[in-house]
Parts: sequence; C-alpha cells; structure tokens
Amino acid sequence: MSKSAALREHFERRSLVRAVGAHNALGAKLVEESGFEAVWQSSFEVSASYGLPDASLLGMNEFLSAAASMNRAVEIPIIADCDTGFGGPLNAAFAAQEYEARGIAAICIEDKQFPKMNSFADGGQHLVPADVFAAKIEAAKAAQAGSDFVVIARTESLIAGLTVDDALARAHEYVDSGADAVLIHSKSTRPDEILEFGRRWSRRVPLVAVPTTYFSVTEAQLIEAGFSTVIYANQSIRASVQAMRDVLATINAHQTGAGVEGGISTMSDLFALQGMPTRFVATS
Amino acid sequence: MSKSAALREHFERRSLVRAVGAHNALGAKLVEESGFEAVWQSSFEVSASYGLPDASLLGMNEFLSAAASMNRAVEIPIIADCDTGFGGPLNAAFAAQEYEARGIAAICIEDKQFPKMNSFADGGQHLVPADVFAAKIEAAKAAQAGSDFVVIARTESLIAGLTVDDALARAHEYVDSGADAVLIHSKSTRPDEILEFGRRWSRRVPLVAVPTTYFSVTEAQLIEAGFSTVIYANQSIRASVQAMRDVLATINAHQTGAGVEGGISTMSDLFALQGMPTRFVATS
Amino acid sequence: MSKSAALREHFERRSLVRAVGAHNALGAKLVEESGFEAVWQSSFEVSASYGLPDASLLGMNEFLSAAASMNRAVEIPIIADCDTGFGGPLNAAFAAQEYEARGIAAICIEDKQFPKMNSFADGGQHLVPADVFAAKIEAAKAAQAGSDFVVIARTESLIAGLTVDDALARAHEYVDSGADAVLIHSKSTRPDEILEFGRRWSRRVPLVAVPTTYFSVTEAQLIEAGFSTVIYANQSIRASVQAMRDVLATINAHQTGAGVEGGISTMSDLFALQGMPTRFVATS
Amino acid sequence: MSKSAALREHFERRSLVRAVGAHNALGAKLVEESGFEAVWQSSFEVSASYGLPDASLLGMNEFLSAAASMNRAVEIPIIADCDTGFGGPLNAAFAAQEYEARGIAAICIEDKQFPKMNSFADGGQHLVPADVFAAKIEAAKAAQAGSDFVVIARTESLIAGLTVDDALARAHEYVDSGADAVLIHSKSTRPDEILEFGRRWSRRVPLVAVPTTYFSVTEAQLIEAGFSTVIYANQSIRASVQAMRDVLATINAHQTGAGVEGGISTMSDLFALQGMPTRFVATS
Repeated sequence: MSKSAALREHFERRSLVRAVGAHNALGAKLVEESGFEAVWQSSFEVSASYGLPDASLLGMNEFLSAAASMNRAVEIPIIADCDTGFGGPLNAAFAAQEYEARGIAAICIEDKQFPKMNSFADGGQHLVPADVFAAKIEAAKAAQAGSDFVVIARTESLIAGLTVDDALARAHEYVDSGADAVLIHSKSTRPDEILEFGRRWSRRVPLVAVPTTYFSVTEAQLIEAGFSTVIYANQSIRASVQAMRDVLATINAHQTGAGVEGGISTMSDLFALQGMPTRFVATS
Repeated sequence: MSKSAALREHFERRSLVRAVGAHNALGAKLVEESGFEAVWQSSFEVSASYGLPDASLLGMNEFLSAAASMNRAVEIPIIADCDTGFGGPLNAAFAAQEYEARGIAAICIEDKQFPKMNSFADGGQHLVPADVFAAKIEAAKAAQAGSDFVVIARTESLIAGLTVDDALARAHEYVDSGADAVLIHSKSTRPDEILEFGRRWSRRVPLVAVPTTYFSVTEAQLIEAGFSTVIYANQSIRASVQAMRDVLATINAHQTGAGVEGGISTMSDLFALQGMPTRFVATS
Repeated sequence: MSKSAALREHFERRSLVRAVGAHNALGAKLVEESGFEAVWQSSFEVSASYGLPDASLLGMNEFLSAAASMNRAVEIPIIADCDTGFGGPLNAAFAAQEYEARGIAAICIEDKQFPKMNSFADGGQHLVPADVFAAKIEAAKAAQAGSDFVVIARTESLIAGLTVDDALARAHEYVDSGADAVLIHSKSTRPDEILEFGRRWSRRVPLVAVPTTYFSVTEAQLIEAGFSTVIYANQSIRASVQAMRDVLATINAHQTGAGVEGGISTMSDLFALQGMPTRFVATS
Repeated sequence: MSKSAALREHFERRSLVRAVGAHNALGAKLVEESGFEAVWQSSFEVSASYGLPDASLLGMNEFLSAAASMNRAVEIPIIADCDTGFGGPLNAAFAAQEYEARGIAAICIEDKQFPKMNSFADGGQHLVPADVFAAKIEAAKAAQAGSDFVVIARTESLIAGLTVDDALARAHEYVDSGADAVLIHSKSTRPDEILEFGRRWSRRVPLVAVPTTYFSVTEAQLIEAGFSTVIYANQSIRASVQAMRDVLATINAHQTGAGVEGGISTMSDLFALQGMPTRFVATS
C-alpha cells in the first residue's frame, strides 16, 4: 500500500490522525518512534534550519528535498507543507507531480499570496481571491498521476483577520475544486473560532487543526468538534532549541562536557537512529 | 578580516579556542549566541540529520551546503569536517578550493581510508599510509587561493588502535606537509592518551582535541597539556534528540500540546533566530 | 579586482559589452574562449536544460547553483538572469546577497509578475506596477554588501504590449530607485522599437539589448542607438540542439558512430575544457 | 510496466538495445525523440557540464539529480553511470536504493578504485581486486527493493592494460555475484579486443559495448559478436561543443546574430522540448 493510501486509510478509520512537525529525517524518525501517525514537513522548521525567515525565500526544491529525505527515513506518511504552492497553478501542478513522484503522501497548499509570510508574523497576511486559489487546487489535482495522492487546502482566512463565515465559504469552494482535506488555521490564543469552524463544517472531507497559539486545546475537544487530524507543527524544533541552549550554557559555564553527558542521548542512540549497520555497533 | 584570519588570530591569542558541533544554520546560531569562538560542522551530525550512517554516504556537496548555510548565518568561523577529503589528492584540492571560495574558515581532513566509518563505530577503522595522507594535505594547501585558509590534519591513529608514538609520527609528517593544525582523535573513555600526546607535542601548530568519549576532561587539563582548541562535537544534537523525544512523549501521553508549552522556546524566539525582519515581529 | 568591478570597467571603457547565454560551466567556458566579455546565465536555458518551461518552476537555488558553477569555471563576469527576483522585495534582497556572496558580477531582475512566463510565449505577460518593481530594486541594492555588485533592471513593457513611452517611464523610475543598468526587452522581429528606446534614453546608466527575435540588428546599430551591452541570450543552446539532433539522426541512420566522428569535438578537446590535469592527458 | 522492466524486455526482445549519452533532461529528450531505446546518463558528460574533470569530484547526489531530471523528462529507461559505486559496498547499496527509488531503470558500476579517473585519461587506471568489486555488486543487488532494477557490472580490465582473459574472468565473477549485465570497456582504436571478448562470452546476461575510441565498429559487427547493447556515450555532447563554438565564432566575426539564425533550432522548437503548455505557444 502506498503511503498516500495509508494516510487515506488513517483518515477513514481513526478518530484522530496525529502528525508532528519535523524538518529533517532525524526529526521524522523521532516522530515515528513516538507512535504518531504522520510527519508534518514544516516549512517554518525547514526555513528555521537554514536560519532564514519563513517567507518563501527557499524554493520548492529545498522543501522537497527535506520531505523526500524524511520520507526515505520513515514508514509513516509525510504531509508536506507547500506554502502557497510556490506560485500559480503551473507551480502547484508541478509540485503535485514532483512530491507524488517522490512518494510523499500529501501536500498542503494555502490561500495566501506568494511570497507568503509566516502566519504568526505581525503583518504580511494577504489572501488571494478564493477562485484564484481554487484554480491551484484544481491544477494540483489534475496533475497527480495516481488516485491516492492527497492535496490539502489550507485557508488562512482567520489568520488574515476574516470571519469564520468567510473561512467556511472558502473551504467549501476548495472542496468543490477537488481538495481532499481542509486545514483551518488560526492564531488565536483560544480554540473557540477553530472549534466553531469544526462544528459548522458539514462536508465529508477530513478537517485539520494546527494548535500552536491555542495550545490548550485537547485532542478530545478537536474530535468532538469534528476534526479528524491534528498537527503539532513546531513543538519539536522549539524543544530542541531550548535543549541546545541549555547544554551550550552548561558546557560554557563548567568548561567541560562532563556535566551534560547524563542528560543527553548517547552516541549508540544516534547510531541506531542513523540506521548504522548493526555489525558496526558495539554490543557492550 | 576574513573568517580564516579571525580563526588564526584566535589560535594566536587565546589560551583555548572552543568550537561546538552543529549541522545546520540554526544550530550554528545557537553556538554563536552562547559565546563560543567557532562552529564545528560535524559530518556525523549532518549524516544523522539525513537519517544516514556517518560513512561517506553523502557527498562533498551536501556537507559543503550545510557548512555554507551555517557560515551565512553566523559571524564566527566555521571549521568544516571534511572526513577523508572525499577521496584522493584531487578531491582534497577541490574541497580546499570550494570551501575557501564559500568563506569557510577551515577544513579538517583525516587519515582514514575512503569511505570512512564513524570513529566510534565498532570496526571499519582503516588508515591510509602516512605519505598517502600527507599528499592530500599538500594538495589541499597548494590549491587554496589565499594565505589564511586553514587546513587541519586529523590523525585517527589512536582510533585505529595504534600507539601515541605512531600518532606523533603521523602528525609530524602532516605538519611537514603543510598542515596548519593537528587534530588528535581518541575513543578512550579516559583522556590519558590524548593528554600524553599533547605533552609530547613540540611543534608550533595548534593542537585540537575532541572529548566525546573522554568527556570528563576539563578545559584546564587540555590547556595544561598543550592543546589550543577543543571541539564539543556532538553534544548539541544529542541534547536535541533527548528533548524532542521528551516533548513527543509528553504530547502523546497527554493528548494535548498544553503540557509542553512552558518548557520550549517560543515562536518569537525562533523568529529572532531566523532573522525575521523586525517589522514582522509583534512587540507585545 | 572583483568580477563586478571588472564588469563596471567594461561598461566604462568599451563601446559595447557583449555577453552570450549559457546554462552550465561548459557553455560558459566556450563563451569565454570565444572572446566575449561576459556570460549571461539564462533562466530560459537553465529551465530548458531541466526539460521544464521557463515559467518560475525552478527556484532561486537551481539558478544560483548554475550561475555559481559557471562563475567557478571562467574568469569573465557572469550576468545572472534572476527573472522577477523570485518574489517580492525580501526575495530580491536575498537574491542580491546570495549572488554577490558567490562572486556573481551582476543580477538582472524584471518587472513582470511572479510567476513569470517566458517573454516569447504567447500570453502570460503581466507587469507589476512600476513602484512595486522599484521597491524590489531598492531592496536588492540595499542588501548588497559591497559597492561594485551590479543590479540590472529589465523592463518587459514592450513584451506586455505597452509603448516605448511606458517603457521609458518605467526605466526612469527604476534608475531613480538605484538600478545600475537597464535592459529593454522586445519580441518584435524588427529592431525599430528598441532603437527608438535607445535614442530617446538620456540617463547615464548602461543600456542592454537582447536581440532574439530582431536578430537582424547589428552591433553597430545598437552602439549608434546608445546601447552599451548586447546579450546573445540563447543562440548557443539552440545551436547545440540542432547539432545533437543531427548527430543522433546520423548514428541512427548509419547504425555506427563512424560517420559523426570527424565533425564533433574530440575527447581531448573536452578534457581541456574540463580542466583535466595535464599529466592525465596524452601528448600524442 | 516500470522502466526497469521495460529495459529488461528490450534486452529480451531486441537484437540490439541502443543507448546514447546525455547529461541533462534536454539531451535525454533528444535521444528519445531520435528513436533510441535508452539514455546513458554519462558521468563524463555531467562532469563536463560542471566544467570539472571526470574524476569522482562530484558526489552521488549530483549524478542522481541529473539522472532523475532526465528520467522525469522521458519515457524511455535511463541507464545511470555510477562510476565505482561511489565508494565501497555500503555506498553501492545506497546508490541502488536511491536510484531505484527515483525510477531509474539501471545503474552501472565499474571495478576501478575510488576515486576513479576517466577511462580515456593517460594514467590513473587502477582496478580493485575482483572479489572486492564482486562484494559491491552483491551489496547493490541485495539492497534493491524490487526484482526488476538492473545492475550492470563494468570491467575496466582492458582499460587498465590487462588481457581479454582477465576481463572474462572478472566478468564471470561479477555475474556470479548477481550482475544483471556486463559492460566491457576498451580504449583501443580498433574493435578487435571487444569483439573477441564478445565471441568468447557464453553467459546469458546481456553484454554492453561503448564504442568511443573504436568508433568504426558497426552495430552489425557488435550483434554478430554477441553484444546486446551499445552505448554511444559522448558523441552528443561533443557535437554540441563543436556547434556552440561555431555559432560563437560566427557571431563574434559578424558582430550580429543574423548569420546564425538559419542554422540553429528555433525558440518554438525549444518550447516544445521544454514541455511548454500549448496555450502559451503561438500557432503561427
């Protein structure tokens, strides 16, 4: 079964599909071993790993390479964050072909203008008209070779300061244009608008939530409101930044690495995550 | 002043130059902000980030791209781990040209056979004859365009189970062939052999230690034994793995992201590390 | 002297700077050995080399890699075709920084919407307002580190069916925003509109023409009309396609390679272009 | 049917499978439209396109990217030139996995030492022992996921100055280790040794010839001697170099592009090769 088919089966059978963000194969392995159903290849994380703002500065190839590297490393499906689809309908169609050809289960594209600005930035949240975005969804769906590849339409309506009504109208249009799932994003610190959207949603396609600012929401609440997928989009990289800072400060303060050794993963641990052939790993 | 010149000045003026391993620009930024003098672009870390064993599976271009991305992100010098120099003398010369052209301060090449196996692996530690490696050092030094670029010769003599005498003989030959510094590696859990090497070393070029297995060593001990540089090569990525595992387990257990929010870096933190233009960062 | 400075000196001293299009280092070497002053890294050619339409499907990184590879191979300056600047002002600024850092002498950005469509395509020629494009030029110029790096503003006014008056107004605004040179493009089969533009141009910055459809124009005519640079943008790749087709047809027809050997470059020729160390090239 | 399966069917059904060398998607398209059965992704050509000697300076990723780009552009199978397999058995296994995953039909690896030197260079032709190379073949075959992927063993025995007897012994060992086909290379200006090898070959796996120096050989002669595949490895790029030189010289001499227009491919031609959507191509 392809990973796209596996993801579709998850949508069918599970009360909630849980994905976690990553930016490289190592992070994807950790998501898999922790028991989540999918990996979110976050463009925010990939941009951060390059030390660059999440503002369409990297091209499709850098994101695709990251997603493909993750996809090689894990058995679970990758959901690739394709921002605006990298331009217009030709770009979205090209993305669908390229990601599908690399075995990526799903791409997610959003209805902001290219170049996009990160959704949690203060400003720069400009939508394209709904029909302009619907044409991208149509182009992506028409371009895929098989029937299983998943195209998720993400509306940034609430991010842009518009209403749940507007978001619902957009989402309906995107589903009518062929979207296989809808992601409704929010930067509210409370889950209210997301939960309202979920309760008012009546189409059969899966609904996806990304609780970053409204982190207090529980999976039970999301399920109750009709969501079928949750993405913990960036907690992992944020944990790693904190941990790296701490270990660097400790080494710096103590002028030795002795003090950090007990609290960090071992070399053997890393070897296992790298898939080192077992004959090269000491058994002691 | 070029970063190569800056690194040479550090070697001259400081009792100890301290570098920390990283595999991407984000990690490099954290090393810089923590006050270390240099970043070690670790091929172990880069390989791990791809979910691949540290065994010459990636090519020079992947390592160079990582180093160049780090170099763009920070002001401090990058010391690039170039494994065996990626092949023979032509490869080492090509590496010197390419890394120097990208503004990387230093490359480090080692006297193992290509393809190399990670030094802490159980097996696969095969050296090339000293004169074969010396020819690579000569080729690299002859290829550099300016006078500041730094080529560090790393001997894996102790890793291969040979003696301190052998390691010293090799290191002398490499310095005679033009090496600007010597890295003596060890997989002992005690620093004794490294400290002995340092005390018996009489040449004027800087000496570099990498306390991974002998983590109990202090910077004071290294300085006392004559080392001028220490590389904490992989503690940062190992800290990040532990932290990502912990946060994933917590989310998994609690079925919400609420419980992890307090212990991880904030989005604003990440924005700052990414160099997000300040007009897009809310002041509240 | 940097290549940017060399290009500026060419603009100062020569009656006409002549650049020829290429898409890889081999093509760039041929342009250099033929005595031209610069190489045009054509995004049309690079796209064609990937078998893709010239429609912003490739990202900055693919174009930059091609330009950097060319730049390593030749001593003459590279003028990089950066299409629309890959997005908005942040993208244009990023491009200026990255191309400059790689030693590319000049970038050229144009006033079409992203994603762009090749200028000779039938349709898809949509301009951005002049002030929107001027902001990109300003951003690019503000981002460069040194003073020599050259940013060429290309107006597609005539390509979009507008008048020479419109093109002049736009070009003036772009120069006021900091453009170091102006490229006026045309898809007319006659040079009249280009020559008119040149004769009516009174600013001191260099003027660039790209005679693809109006190929009958002579360098003397361009000089007379006030142009300081001509780019033969794609003749080389078009010659190579014709030649490859011919040789393939001959092999196919004769069922041997014997018939083509006399009319193609020799292996020794190629070795020399590759920079093969001379000790590996037989002298016979 | 996969392209690997298609290539295997060609081996079964055709008296001679004919492949032609290319280094990018454009060249691959021309090979396909000329009616050949396969494309040879030549590492010599790819290196030349980067302006670099064919001496293992580029890594697997650059060659794989070129092969994958070609593979996307054409329907016919790609046979990828993987030099020595990029190192040892782990590298060869990794290559098999990566090329197969990208849909490449076949890889070809050779029994020279890494780093290799181009077979027509004067010197640097050092073989590994037969059993060392056989282990790489075994590793590659063991690593492939499906049953159709083709691994071609290339012996450089004659290139290294050894006898046909030696070449046969090596080829037998490689087939015993799982090679799906054998490529026997020669730098003789006469086909005699190749034809002798073919006549003395009795195994059932396909035999491949690469008539570069012995270009006078005919396909009929190769078939008669028992070869099932011929690769015209580099004639296409050598034709393109000659043509680009000619057109550059003409432009340079005449100071106009007018004189070359009639003898080169048209822009419409190139648009078609790029797969430009037809709505953007003028019908006139």
